[in-house]
Amino acid sequence: MSKTDPDLAKMIDEIAQEMRARTDRGRVASYIPELEKVDPAHFGMALVDLDGQVHVGGDADLPFSIQSISKVFTLTLALGRVGDRLWRKVGREPSGNKFNSIVQLEHEQGVPRNPFVNAGAIAVTDEILSGRQPRETLGEILRFLQFLADDETIYIDHEVAASEKRTGFRNAALTNYMKSFGVIENPVEYTLGVYFHHCAIAMSCRQLANAGLFLASDGRHPVRGHSVVSSERARRINALMMTCGHYDGSGEFAYRVGLPGKSGVGGGILAIAPGRASIAVWAPGLDETGNSHLGRVALEELAKRTGWSVFGR
Amino acid sequence: MSKTDPDLAKMIDEIAQEMRARTDRGRVASYIPELEKVDPAHFGMALVDLDGQVHVGGDADLPFSIQSISKVFTLTLALGRVGDRLWRKVGREPSGNKFNSIVQLEHEQGVPRNPFVNAGAIAVTDEILSGRQPRETLGEILRFLQFLADDETIYIDHEVAASEKRTGFRNAALTNYMKSFGVIENPVEYTLGVYFHHCAIAMSCRQLANAGLFLASDGRHPVRGHSVVSSERARRINALMMTCGHYDGSGEFAYRVGLPGKSGVGGGILAIAPGRASIAVWAPGLDETGNSHLGRVALEELAKRTGWSVFGR
Amino acid sequence: MSKTDPDLAKMIDEIAQEMRARTDRGRVASYIPELEKVDPAHFGMALVDLDGQVHVGGDADLPFSIQSISKVFTLTLALGRVGDRLWRKVGREPSGNKFNSIVQLEHEQGVPRNPFVNAGAIAVTDEILSGRQPRETLGEILRFLQFLADDETIYIDHEVAASEKRTGFRNAALTNYMKSFGVIENPVEYTLGVYFHHCAIAMSCRQLANAGLFLASDGRHPVRGHSVVSSERARRINALMMTCGHYDGSGEFAYRVGLPGKSGVGGGILAIAPGRASIAVWAPGLDETGNSHLGRVALEELAKRTGWSVFGR
Amino acid sequence: MSKTDPDLAKMIDEIAQEMRARTDRGRVASYIPELEKVDPAHFGMALVDLDGQVHVGGDADLPFSIQSISKVFTLTLALGRVGDRLWRKVGREPSGNKFNSIVQLEHEQGVPRNPFVNAGAIAVTDEILSGRQPRETLGEILRFLQFLADDETIYIDHEVAASEKRTGFRNAALTNYMKSFGVIENPVEYTLGVYFHHCAIAMSCRQLANAGLFLASDGRHPVRGHSVVSSERARRINALMMTCGHYDGSGEFAYRVGLPGKSGVGGGILAIAPGRASIAVWAPGLDETGNSHLGRVALEELAKRTGWSVFGR
Repeated sequence: MSKTDPDLAKMIDEIAQEMRARTDRGRVASYIPELEKVDPAHFGMALVDLDGQVHVGGDADLPFSIQSISKVFTLTLALGRVGDRLWRKVGREPSGNKFNSIVQLEHEQGVPRNPFVNAGAIAVTDEILSGRQPRETLGEILRFLQFLADDETIYIDHEVAASEKRTGFRNAALTNYMKSFGVIENPVEYTLGVYFHHCAIAMSCRQLANAGLFLASDGRHPVRGHSVVSSERARRINALMMTCGHYDGSGEFAYRVGLPGKSGVGGGILAIAPGRASIAVWAPGLDETGNSHLGRVALEELAKRTGWSVFGR
Repeated sequence: MSKTDPDLAKMIDEIAQEMRARTDRGRVASYIPELEKVDPAHFGMALVDLDGQVHVGGDADLPFSIQSISKVFTLTLALGRVGDRLWRKVGREPSGNKFNSIVQLEHEQGVPRNPFVNAGAIAVTDEILSGRQPRETLGEILRFLQFLADDETIYIDHEVAASEKRTGFRNAALTNYMKSFGVIENPVEYTLGVYFHHCAIAMSCRQLANAGLFLASDGRHPVRGHSVVSSERARRINALMMTCGHYDGSGEFAYRVGLPGKSGVGGGILAIAPGRASIAVWAPGLDETGNSHLGRVALEELAKRTGWSVFGR
Repeated sequence: MSKTDPDLAKMIDEIAQEMRARTDRGRVASYIPELEKVDPAHFGMALVDLDGQVHVGGDADLPFSIQSISKVFTLTLALGRVGDRLWRKVGREPSGNKFNSIVQLEHEQGVPRNPFVNAGAIAVTDEILSGRQPRETLGEILRFLQFLADDETIYIDHEVAASEKRTGFRNAALTNYMKSFGVIENPVEYTLGVYFHHCAIAMSCRQLANAGLFLASDGRHPVRGHSVVSSERARRINALMMTCGHYDGSGEFAYRVGLPGKSGVGGGILAIAPGRASIAVWAPGLDETGNSHLGRVALEELAKRTGWSVFGR
Repeated sequence: MSKTDPDLAKMIDEIAQEMRARTDRGRVASYIPELEKVDPAHFGMALVDLDGQVHVGGDADLPFSIQSISKVFTLTLALGRVGDRLWRKVGREPSGNKFNSIVQLEHEQGVPRNPFVNAGAIAVTDEILSGRQPRETLGEILRFLQFLADDETIYIDHEVAASEKRTGFRNAALTNYMKSFGVIENPVEYTLGVYFHHCAIAMSCRQLANAGLFLASDGRHPVRGHSVVSSERARRINALMMTCGHYDGSGEFAYRVGLPGKSGVGGGILAIAPGRASIAVWAPGLDETGNSHLGRVALEELAKRTGWSVFGR
């Protein structure tokens, strides 16, 4: 398997153009007012291979709200802080439910199914906080992303965070619910505040693809050389992205794209081709499971043209 | 990546010996009386690589009831018969529920979540039947397995089928329930009869690993050369095995083993290492999600020692 | 409180005329083909007071399929056979779900919530069967109704029973499901056969009101003098009719009518005004909870005009 | 039917003594720390007949936390303010679930099943607030109870309210959840604050029985003469108490006691014998459905000895 492909640049560019030409765009997320303002015509894509070569297409350098994609990085941080103790308060199974469902919590004593549904990600955030101040914790999360992407311009969009805080009653319900079972240990407003803010981090496709590269490379930056997590942990994070990364559209993503991925309601998706590349796409319109419609289509095209799929030889 | 490994034979043998020495065996399935008679001390394992080399350990040549592992092959047959039309009556998402749950059916108009939960596999069986006689359909399924494994001694254990028929009220409930929504098109007793009988097929680990080899090799038998399914379809079946192959233990299996797999309550698991090997294990004792306990442990060991995982480079 | 009211005859007649003039009729049950043939324009009403006086209006002497109203009488029979032991296999709480829901059964180990949802009534039928032949059991149920109504012309409509048998997959699902938990003790087809047939009993409003009179009179026939059940048991059956008699429309019926009642998808309702009268209405069109629309409206009118309500002085 | 009974005084006294002698007391509510301090040995009972005569037994003059019994009075107030418009944001059906369940809310777009489950009562409180200040609204609720009981000493126990506020995360979850669907119109902390405080009202059995008397008397105070609500509304509130007043123990209460009633986790129950009396009991130990154990037993005894039941003649 060759690590770099001279045709990749052309392929990314073609896919970006094809996506921009399509009229089936899905619908921009309406439940966070600030996100609703985003132009659905945007499309961006960036691919970083294991030699560190970056190929981009479309609006690959425009920052967008990464939203739930941040959960991949908070999960990585939480595992770094507490290791497998994390799993006492969050599961590792697909939920079969919407991203913001509360039903499963009632049936399972307030323990969320996995770290990528909202409740699970809030529990992970609570673990990172662990008694510290929200500001300090948030700084740690932001610096971690800046370090991974090697880019200090990555920032938190405070208007998005404020918008979500004003309207995030469903997440407040989830947090209070888990608190009633003792799963949340910090004050509800602390945990929720950090959660809203790390979801409001803005990144471009280029930055995001760079930040995810360690997952394509067994936990180690393939060029800069430093280790982020152990090989085993990188694989396990990929496994969780595969089974749970797209809420109740996870099976569909695995079936069509065949790569681990994590979506956000801002329209971004981070996908990992282990041993090959880290890929970020952005298309603001969502399908009915809350995942970027053209983002998934673009990744499906990429998988088809490259033959990359973890399920083939 | 080398396709054959001189140490594989030794590794399989060692794992088999270690598993046999363990005392944590889980519990033999009790809901089918005939299965309850099986000695929990059995352990078998077989690995076929892409050169067709077979490595075995333990009771690798003892036939056992493959039960739900048959669903991989009936899915393959059904896709061959009707292609993507199959998906009008069964979904592709993990269910988040027990293998025999009926709750999801009520919430989703009788359409089961995926082809590997009981309801979904029954719907798939109904699709294969499509107006034919049960005997004829069952013959087709059995011959397909004999062809894949290149072994005409594979048989249906009629005592197991009869045992399940006498006690399979929950599966009868699922089938009647789907019938009330029009998802089942054949007479309930026909569909259920074929389902009980293909679950009662008996195979050894060696036979099973051989039968699954096409999935490790992009749909084609790597030695005999014939194509079973297209490359795309093989990958998609693997994807479904990854996200849904172990019921509400699918996330855990992906997390720990990192390979697509399908378990059966008879204690078998078929796992696929794409581009490398097809592996079958058998250990009758089940964990609380209804999957073979030592079977999963053995595959976890294999994945660790070989470094095989679809989630790593 | 006077037991007979000279104006009752007039009131019943007026209500029947008003109901016949209305155009909001609901929809005739479609899930049993034979019932779908019934003309939605029918309306019948009969009231028997504690002096045995009968007042009728509309099609009060036309037999209709009593369907789930039969459950009041099978409950009475089952309590007579096994007393409070009945409650080990069926609860006494409103379910909050549709009449044919199976979700609650999964959450509560196959024990239905109350004797008036389908699953509960099937469990009650199973208790009456208790090892006997279906024909014998069915004869007992029919004779009990003939005795209560003092009318030997009451019969089972075998075409309705056959129609339900051909299409009753959802009830077959419920029965098999309970059987898998050991709640059903007889062969599934026996219990289901008796259930379908007692639901297919045909009675007129006059017959039905007469048959229910013992419930308005503390368990004793107020004129003929014989005791059917103890006073305590009659009150408890009324309590169950109040909290569970209209499926997930029970709260609404209690709120609007204020009398215990039991509806059937044939469009009938039996209502009890304790110490005053037994009332039967029939209007085939159903509302969205599966209860007779004009039947409920008629009873609401009666309650308003008479001032009868168990919730007022 | 005689309105006063010379033996009632004796009967109440006997029941109180019997209850005090019993050792099966249930368990004092633990989820509000302040309530956990209450001595489980308390038992009080008061009955007011339609002549205004009060009969008491045990600790009938000791104030206790009325908790959810307050919901009967906030429902009365809300219906007075907005009439049937109330029903656009809360249903009238038994839920079949625990008092604090959130599952039903997810399935039904944030509209709670009835005004007596926690979510429903919070929605009712929100309706009473309707843009006003919490303090003002709370004053109105308290004055309403003082007026009904003709007793200005009734007070809010601020320690109980503060205790619930500190630990009421599950109610905060319910409120935020409904807010996300637009069912809650005031700020979450306002609605929740009023809810916690009206649940923390302290009353004795004597005061409570007096406050409920209008419900036994078709909406009018039988002695003082003033009308609280219309006859129809009083009956409908009774109907809701019958079908929904004891959460998922409502069917059982109707079956055993046969009177409309509303319980609170403080161990109180208000029961209404229409046309006869208003009865309050208090026994702090709860059964597994969260209703006062000995409270229900005492009312069952009273119903048996008086023959009072809305389901008998």
